[in-house]
Amino acid sequence: MMQRCIQLARSAAGRTAPNPMVGCVITQQGEIVGEGFHPKAGEPHAEVFALRAAGTRAHGATVYVSLEPCNHYGRTPPCAEALIKAQVSRVVVGMVDPDPRVSGGGIARLREAGIEVIVGVEEAACRQLNEGFIQRVLHQRPFGILKYAMTLDGKIATPQGHSAWVSNEAARSQVHQLRSTCDAIIIGTHTVARDNPSLTSHCVSQDNCHNPLRVVMSRSLQLPVEAQIWDVTHAPTLVLTQGNGNPQILQQIQDQGVEVLPVDQLTPQVAMAELYRRGCATVLWECGGTLAAAAIAQGMVQKVMAFIAPKVIGGVGAPSPVGNLGFSRMSQALELNQVTCEAIGTNFLIQGYLEPPKSDEIPR
Amino acid sequence: MMQRCIQLARSAAGRTAPNPMVGCVITQQGEIVGEGFHPKAGEPHAEVFALRAAGTRAHGATVYVSLEPCNHYGRTPPCAEALIKAQVSRVVVGMVDPDPRVSGGGIARLREAGIEVIVGVEEAACRQLNEGFIQRVLHQRPFGILKYAMTLDGKIATPQGHSAWVSNEAARSQVHQLRSTCDAIIIGTHTVARDNPSLTSHCVSQDNCHNPLRVVMSRSLQLPVEAQIWDVTHAPTLVLTQGNGNPQILQQIQDQGVEVLPVDQLTPQVAMAELYRRGCATVLWECGGTLAAAAIAQGMVQKVMAFIAPKVIGGVGAPSPVGNLGFSRMSQALELNQVTCEAIGTNFLIQGYLEPPKSDEIPR
Repeated sequence: MMQRCIQLARSAAGRTAPNPMVGCVITQQGEIVGEGFHPKAGEPHAEVFALRAAGTRAHGATVYVSLEPCNHYGRTPPCAEALIKAQVSRVVVGMVDPDPRVSGGGIARLREAGIEVIVGVEEAACRQLNEGFIQRVLHQRPFGILKYAMTLDGKIATPQGHSAWVSNEAARSQVHQLRSTCDAIIIGTHTVARDNPSLTSHCVSQDNCHNPLRVVMSRSLQLPVEAQIWDVTHAPTLVLTQGNGNPQILQQIQDQGVEVLPVDQLTPQVAMAELYRRGCATVLWECGGTLAAAAIAQGMVQKVMAFIAPKVIGGVGAPSPVGNLGFSRMSQALELNQVTCEAIGTNFLIQGYLEPPKSDEIPR
Repeated sequence: MMQRCIQLARSAAGRTAPNPMVGCVITQQGEIVGEGFHPKAGEPHAEVFALRAAGTRAHGATVYVSLEPCNHYGRTPPCAEALIKAQVSRVVVGMVDPDPRVSGGGIARLREAGIEVIVGVEEAACRQLNEGFIQRVLHQRPFGILKYAMTLDGKIATPQGHSAWVSNEAARSQVHQLRSTCDAIIIGTHTVARDNPSLTSHCVSQDNCHNPLRVVMSRSLQLPVEAQIWDVTHAPTLVLTQGNGNPQILQQIQDQGVEVLPVDQLTPQVAMAELYRRGCATVLWECGGTLAAAAIAQGMVQKVMAFIAPKVIGGVGAPSPVGNLGFSRMSQALELNQVTCEAIGTNFLIQGYLEPPKSDEIPR
């Protein structure tokens, strides 16, 4: 049942931020009598939809919910009260609310009302579901994912910068899927100029045509006038710059509907702070090695997703996925945790979580 | 039974060149009555050991053998005759002899004598077992394997050249195992100077303490006087050079028992021709990116084994596994075939076969 909650929750992936994804299932004698998920911020929580569907069959029912029911008045009334009012007899919670200010409050309220509460069912999966939301709540910044595609000899392009395509069609389709679950994608000046990507999800699935905000970090504004990313028909584009760049290109892209935001010091940290302010929970770094290294060094990357194509391109000067981190000894390398590897057609996806860098480890 | 033949054959891995590895099992009513494998060149073939073990129980027996029994007088009399003499009734052959000059002769001789012969059981596995031998016979050069260990961001060392260690202990142990099955290992000047490897198998298993010939390709002879590889106590070392290098270092390493062979034009092709002449079937390239690229460009690499450690080291100038191949478009990349990926502790081994480069594809 908790797996079903997670599945329900995921159907709104990419659309709930700054809220979490939550799924809820209500059962009577093992039979599902109501289901729901939180579709987007401002709309009712998962429990409300499930209770509506269950109606009076919620009396004495068991409620499965992937995240602790809320106990505070936000844009919607507290779900804990709704569950009490519906006279459910048991609530099974995937994980407690990560926000230390409210954590456990909903569970305590339910128990106070005499409802049996079980906590921590499929907790790891529930935590993974909302790793973006958890990062927001605990660290006041979005969860950063560095994604790249490289050849088996470690290159993301030829020495001339040509990169279409490193990975196979199945892997690229999985990237479109990944984008549809993210709130923003960041690239740098070079990626716009060299790859001219559209960075959209290409409507991978009919029920999820969500496109994340596309963000270009560009101090210089040495950007092409013509670029797919300036077309804001399907997805918005934000250019972060330092405000001393090329004013001509600035005007031209603004005329096409691109938002330009000058900041004092443009760094990955500043970019992520801005995206946090805008409510983003999960941000995808699809940039080149220089920006990727800066993002890692500033602790703005929590997860690495490396698509590996089994081919050899060669090239001493060919770009690799991560630029200078200032390490001279192999023992200084940043280890990934919870690493998995899966085959995607003939390609492989190796992914894992990056430990936050110690402040004395990497020159910022 | 054929799987058992392959297992038996493999117990002599690294010691049979220029001969193939062969295993043989003799059964009566499904019960094994004799087993054997070819231990090394000059010693009897697998069938002879198995027939010896079976004795009179070979009459009317079924013989499984991973490679077609020979039908010519070499250093040993033909096995086909020995099988006929022992009055076996059926022979199951893994694969025919790849040598077009003798291929099928042993099978024809057996059938002529009224013995039932079945050909091609577990053929793919039998071919893989002897991919080195097959390469020797068909192309008159050894089978080349390029092996490297890289980080998940595609580096084999830090920008300063520090590489101890990229891979984990389990992966390094697997490399020792791999070395014990090879006939020679090639490295270049830089690898001796930077990594100072011993390139031995470290006696990974008690029954296989085989160490391959260690080969250093060095035009310049700009080599350190002190290096583990000059210690020939456990394994021989051969230095291939152009004969116009540093004469002082030459004398010093020769005094330690290292063989030095000057050639006219030192290239991967010339090195492999020399190793073919010496009877090598399988050669491991454990070199840096420059030599690896030259070996690939000259068609001296048939298989790539990439150990991938899930960590990030960064570095724009950090060396990557394969140097310049002269490709400018990603579509020119050399694809690997029959690719597999396996977890080795927390590391991964991705391996596959490289198509021979088209002569007009890569600048030699």
